[in-house]
Parts: sequence; structure tokens; C-alpha cells
Amino acid sequence: MTPKTEKIILGIDPGSNIMGFGVLKVIGNTPEMLKMGVLDLRKTKDHYVSLRKIFNFTLELINTYHPDELAIEAPFFGKNVQSMLKLGRAQGTAITAAVICDLPIFEYAPLKIKMAITGNGKAAKSQVADMMRRILNIPESEMPTLLDATDGLAAAYCHFLQSTNRTKTNTSGKCRKWSDFVRTHPEKIIPTKSK
Amino acid sequence: MTPKTEKIILGIDPGSNIMGFGVLKVIGNTPEMLKMGVLDLRKTKDHYVSLRKIFNFTLELINTYHPDELAIEAPFFGKNVQSMLKLGRAQGTAITAAVICDLPIFEYAPLKIKMAITGNGKAAKSQVADMMRRILNIPESEMPTLLDATDGLAAAYCHFLQSTNRTKTNTSGKCRKWSDFVRTHPEKIIPTKSK
Repeated sequence: MTPKTEKIILGIDPGSNIMGFGVLKVIGNTPEMLKMGVLDLRKTKDHYVSLRKIFNFTLELINTYHPDELAIEAPFFGKNVQSMLKLGRAQGTAITAAVICDLPIFEYAPLKIKMAITGNGKAAKSQVADMMRRILNIPESEMPTLLDATDGLAAAYCHFLQSTNRTKTNTSGKCRKWSDFVRTHPEKIIPTKSK
Repeated sequence: MTPKTEKIILGIDPGSNIMGFGVLKVIGNTPEMLKMGVLDLRKTKDHYVSLRKIFNFTLELINTYHPDELAIEAPFFGKNVQSMLKLGRAQGTAITAAVICDLPIFEYAPLKIKMAITGNGKAAKSQVADMMRRILNIPESEMPTLLDATDGLAAAYCHFLQSTNRTKTNTSGKCRKWSDFVRTHPEKIIPTKSK
């Protein structure tokens, strides 16, 4: 029997005020939450200190959980250019930490994450949190107050779903069953001669 | 005689396509250009590789020239939210490199830099470059093709002017001449009694 594959996905939702994160362990096709939480920067008034904290915190998460991949919630639209610039700096800092650790990065728009998890691209943060709790069997006591944590976890979960879909539609042939190949390539079948 | 103070200012203009830089050595009140140049990312198609290059390049500049301060050209307005997000990421990455090296950071809007150097906030890049060449006596042969280099140098020079002005308007009294103090505070002068 082939041993089940194991993968750790770190999901983050980096904001300039709060950065949420979630760590998902995937054994075979079964995801399990290892940890989720936030880096609360609301009381950090110095913008550069915030960036330093985001950088160090992301490095710490990588050194603690040794993720194989980073999934990041990355909005492409915002209220205004100023808020996008600030968000871009926070994202750039977190991404830099991952990049120097050679971590592959996958970005997902908030709408895509919400759609993948709740089926509704406009779902509220609380709905995303509730779905995460149900899907990953998270005890009520472990649910966070700040839903940026479940947003980070949702980014990781969305990436897990995406990777699973990729494997299913893999065209390299390596992961596909022979019966699937035969069904999708009838022209390759050499008809047996009738005796 | 008090020895002249010496300060190195690294100026950068980080963009997602080209990052310009200039290094200024200030002895006393006399600035001298040590180096200027660019990191050309136009052929780097992978966004994450670009961020890694910006991070490593900024660290390299810091390790080579040991600047005391970083001046950064930082636009607060842009064409659209997408371009600002991309610019924010490039800025965040360069700032992170400076922040982890404990470098004090000073941001200047392009309009402020142009105004400080040419007297016109809407000056063209070539005008800024020409003023930098004249002010710092840069030989024509050392002038760059990509004017992002002179933009980086201009950020450093703008910061030099700003620091000098700060010293001039210093209210601690330490750096001011007694004659200036007397002129600006006539009420403090005790009139000598006429004999």
C-alpha cells in the first residue's frame, strides 16, 4: 500500500491592522487544523514596527510549522489607493518572509475563498468561520474572537481544495487510473481480432 | 576644532519594474555621490522572484555602503488600485530589508522631492537628473540611462536638505548660533542702562 501523502499548508490573511493565520495538515485527502490565530497590530502605531512584526511573525510561523506551501488571501480591489498601498506593503512583507524560505506561494481573492467554502462569494466572515468549524470539527472553545484567524485558515483550506482539484484533473497521467485513461482515449485501444 | 560629522544616506525609488538607488555621503554640510544605479526587473516575469530580488538587492546595498538612514520615494497616489497594490508590495519588501537592519526610514512624496531639487513639483525626470548632475558635479559619463537611478539619488538628496533644514530650525538651541537666537528673541535682550 502506498503511504499517504502529507502536506502542511500555511494560510494567511495579512492586513495592516490584523494578520490572521491558519495551519492545515493534510494527510492523504483529509485536512486537519493544527493551529489558527492572529497577529494583532492595532496598538502598534509605528508603521515600520508593524512591518517588522509581520515579517518576524511569518518567519516564526514557517519555522514552527514547516509548511510546504503558503496560501494567501489577497484582495485585488480596495476602498482607495491609500488603503491598497498599505495593504500591499503588509502583503509584500509577509510574502518576502515566505519567498526567502523558498515557500511556493498561492494567492486567492476573498471572493474565491468565500465561494469555495460557503458557496457564496459574498458570505460574511462569521459564515466562513462557521463552515470552517463544521468542516474541520473545531471545538467551539477553540473558535477565535477575531475572525481574521478563520480567514487565514480559510485561505489554507481553499488552497487544499484547489490542490485536490488539480490532482483530479492532472494531465500528466501519473496520478490517473488506467481505466480513466482508456475511457478518455478510445482511439488508443487496439481492437482485438475476432477469432 | 570639532571634527566634521559624516553621514551616509541611501536613497531608493522602488518600483515593481525598476528600482533606482543613490548613495550620498555627507561630510559636514557637503554632499557627495558615492554611487547610483538600478535594479532592472523588467525581464523578471515571476512577481515573487522580483520581490526576492528587491529584498536581496536592498540588503546588499545596506551591507556595502552601511548607510545611516534610508530615504524612500513613496508616491501616495497612483493610476489605479492594482498598480498601488503592486507598488506597495515592492515598497514593503524594500522597507522590510531596511527595518530588519535597524535603519531609520524617511519617506518623501515625488512632488516634494521634485520641488526640493528643481523648485517645480511637476518637473520631468530629466530635469531632476540634470539638477542632480550639476549640484553633485557628476561627470556626464557617469550619468545613467535609466533615470530611476537619479530618482533614487534625488530621494537621498531631498532627505539631506530636509535634515539640514531640521538642524537650522532646531529649537533645542544646541546647533544654533547665538546671534540667530538674539535676532529671533528680541524680548530676551536686557537693555543696557544708559550711563
